[in-house]
Amino acid sequence: MTSTTSTRRWVLAATPDGEPKLSDFEMIWVQLPPLREGGIMVRNTFISVDPGVMDRLTRDSYAPRLAPGEVIDGFSVGVVTASQNPRFAVGDRVSSANGWREGYVSSGRGVLRLDPAVFSPPISERAAIGALGVSGLTAYFGVREVTRATSGETVLVSSAAGAVGSTAIQVARNLGCRAVGIAGSEEKARLVVKDLGAEACINYRREPNLAAAIAGTCPDGVDVFFDNVGGETLDAALVNMSQGGRVAISGQVSEYSRAEPRGIREVGELINRRITMSGFVVWDFLPRFRKGMAEMRNWMVEGQLVFREEIIDGFENAPSAFIGLFRGENRGRRLIRLAPHA
Amino acid sequence: MTSTTSTRRWVLAATPDGEPKLSDFEMIWVQLPPLREGGIMVRNTFISVDPGVMDRLTRDSYAPRLAPGEVIDGFSVGVVTASQNPRFAVGDRVSSANGWREGYVSSGRGVLRLDPAVFSPPISERAAIGALGVSGLTAYFGVREVTRATSGETVLVSSAAGAVGSTAIQVARNLGCRAVGIAGSEEKARLVVKDLGAEACINYRREPNLAAAIAGTCPDGVDVFFDNVGGETLDAALVNMSQGGRVAISGQVSEYSRAEPRGIREVGELINRRITMSGFVVWDFLPRFRKGMAEMRNWMVEGQLVFREEIIDGFENAPSAFIGLFRGENRGRRLIRLAPHA
Repeated sequence: MTSTTSTRRWVLAATPDGEPKLSDFEMIWVQLPPLREGGIMVRNTFISVDPGVMDRLTRDSYAPRLAPGEVIDGFSVGVVTASQNPRFAVGDRVSSANGWREGYVSSGRGVLRLDPAVFSPPISERAAIGALGVSGLTAYFGVREVTRATSGETVLVSSAAGAVGSTAIQVARNLGCRAVGIAGSEEKARLVVKDLGAEACINYRREPNLAAAIAGTCPDGVDVFFDNVGGETLDAALVNMSQGGRVAISGQVSEYSRAEPRGIREVGELINRRITMSGFVVWDFLPRFRKGMAEMRNWMVEGQLVFREEIIDGFENAPSAFIGLFRGENRGRRLIRLAPHA
Repeated sequence: MTSTTSTRRWVLAATPDGEPKLSDFEMIWVQLPPLREGGIMVRNTFISVDPGVMDRLTRDSYAPRLAPGEVIDGFSVGVVTASQNPRFAVGDRVSSANGWREGYVSSGRGVLRLDPAVFSPPISERAAIGALGVSGLTAYFGVREVTRATSGETVLVSSAAGAVGSTAIQVARNLGCRAVGIAGSEEKARLVVKDLGAEACINYRREPNLAAAIAGTCPDGVDVFFDNVGGETLDAALVNMSQGGRVAISGQVSEYSRAEPRGIREVGELINRRITMSGFVVWDFLPRFRKGMAEMRNWMVEGQLVFREEIIDGFENAPSAFIGLFRGENRGRRLIRLAPHA
């Protein structure tokens, strides 16, 4: 393991001003500390690059924003390479949320040992940062518990080709709902229908009037809106909600690279249409993760839940992969595959 | 009754452009039709002038906006002067929502016979368009059922000196909550504390930063926000909500005289603070009106619920009374007292 104790991290160089750029990030080398009683050493195999991180870089929200020098947020899966902690054995697969690091030393707090019964063929360890990780469970609990979508309802999902949205589409479909997506290109829209089983998907870039496009696709109204985007998209959905419609606010990605949030104009529709709008984060449902993962794994095994990943090789490519998210480049959850150390 | 069959109405002359003005209204004389089988004739004693009507005049919402020539919306109480309907007797007190009319002929649909057991001393018939009418019941069901405020919680109420807000403050207080108001003058703020029993009331006109003022008054956060105002006021509350806070959207009066709604910016707080925001109208709770009115009447009789009215004499003064609402003139629910016919 001595060869891996020198390891790389990506840290914030400067708080992004508008859209993120390469110079906002800096790669540093660090020496991992020697392992002490209770400690584990992990070599990551994959890290995730996620659009929601932009908010963490630029704005105080559920936590203070990142300061320059701090490691960029991300999820990872890896393998335990050394352990002085009885809960972990060398070779265990683990996931964590401690950022863009090649490897790390930890007390084990916040490190989740992956249950081999769940993460075993045909289910890859990568699912722990995908369909069976934060993205997938966000979609699952958002649709199933926040909105309580039921069979026969129309469920609209924004950013429907993204990590969370693509799962939300499939969860809605698996619950017997009519799933309709909103995505940012013809290619994505086709994929949402063809690969994810949505009944329709609107390419918002081709629609001069998104509200009218939603009305055309959902003539009986939208019972549930699962929103990852916010702003104009949320407004366009609000004017199309059914009476008693529910909106789950999962993310607000259109807001993350703005200096000031745009917000929404159509608050009055909450009265007119008796809408309930709820924000949530997946951790609110932590006590039910196990149950959710079991249902999701079943769907995966039965081929009723696919998770689209885009694997980019090389730790050094994390910032450019992140920046591309804001240019609509991604075709699924972006994961960085780390080269095994020599 | 022949002398009353010629009667006056206020109709819309022109859709207001910005704030309402006298020339937007026109008084017309009409002949009431002769009473037919099943019909009743009513002479109103009071009509209400309500800020929410501005939305009806200018915007398609739960109903299409009013067209020129249509009667201005308002609530009324009156007395049945002739009846060919077995459900109503001459002398019965009734309430309705059919607008600014001195009198009307109706089939009885939408006309509520006031239960003498409820509307009997010390409770005036006017309570049917006050604490025991739409305003009061909006506050009651909003606080009690939409937000489910419970004892010990902090309940913030905007437009706290208004018809709905002043009742919401008292309902919250009667439920054992800590009630805090927001109002538009020192006089109103004093009244909300002194007469309505709020623990504090913020005069937003004196606060350069409303969000900071709320934070100062509610240092442990706002558990429930009962909102009549929207816009900046709603944003200022959102950034002060407790985790899991609930917002009841009752009205959006700050939006009604804008050409385009301003809306809110702080949608991301719904995620950060796990806020649920629900719009409602009182009619959603129609099956529970009887129960709500019973609890409210008890509070009134015990002196735990006061309803502030401002009585303006003369049917001809309805438009100026309405316009004054948007200038902060009113000191309670505005009612027009109609002169008894000779």
